[in-house]
Amino acid sequence: MSLFGFSFKPRKKGSAETAKDRLQILLAHERSSGSGTPDYLPQLQRDIIEVVKKYIQVEQDDVEIRMERGNELSSLEINIEVPSGKPKEEAAKA
Amino acid sequence: MSLFGFSFKPRKKGSAETAKDRLQILLAHERSSGSGTPDYLPQLQRDIIEVVKKYIQVEQDDVEIRMERGNELSSLEINIEVPSGKPKEEAAKA
Repeated sequence: MSLFGFSFKPRKKGSAETAKDRLQILLAHERSSGSGTPDYLPQLQRDIIEVVKKYIQVEQDDVEIRMERGNELSSLEINIEVPSGKPKEEAAKA
Repeated sequence: MSLFGFSFKPRKKGSAETAKDRLQILLAHERSSGSGTPDYLPQLQRDIIEVVKKYIQVEQDDVEIRMERGNELSSLEINIEVPSGKPKEEAAKA
C-alpha cells in the first residue's frame, strides 16, 4: 500500500509580491484494518490550529483546510499563509 | 521553487503482524526571504505531541522525529505508531 503520497501544493500566484510566511501541516492517520479506532483528526485539527496561534497571528482567512476521510486512512492538510511581519514575538522567544 | 516535496515513508516491515495505528505529521515552515521570522518548529513540535497525547496514548518510544532546518525552509516529520487498542476513548468521544 502506498497510501502516503502527499505533496505540498505550490505557493499561490502573486504571493511573492507580498512577503509571506507559510506553514503547512499534513496529518495522516492510518488505522489498522478493523481496529475501529475513532477518527480524531477533526478534533486534532482544531487543537493544532490553537497551538499554532501561540506562535503566529492566524486569522481565519489565512487558514485553508482539506480533509479526506476513509475507513483505513484519513488525511488532513492545513495551509496557513501569514504576512511575514506577524510572528508573536513573546511566544517565539520562549 | 518546489521545496515542498514530502512523501510519507513506508510502513515498517512487520508492522502488519501486530495491528498498529499510525499517525504521521509533516510540518513545513517557509519563511519569506529576509523576513527574519523566528523558527518556531522545535517548540511547535513539542506542543503538537502534547496535543496528540490527548487522543492516543503515546510512549516516547512510539515517536520518531526528523527535522531539517534551513534559512528559508524548515521541515519537521513526526511519526507515531501505536498499537491500535490504545485510543483514549474519553477524548476520542469528545
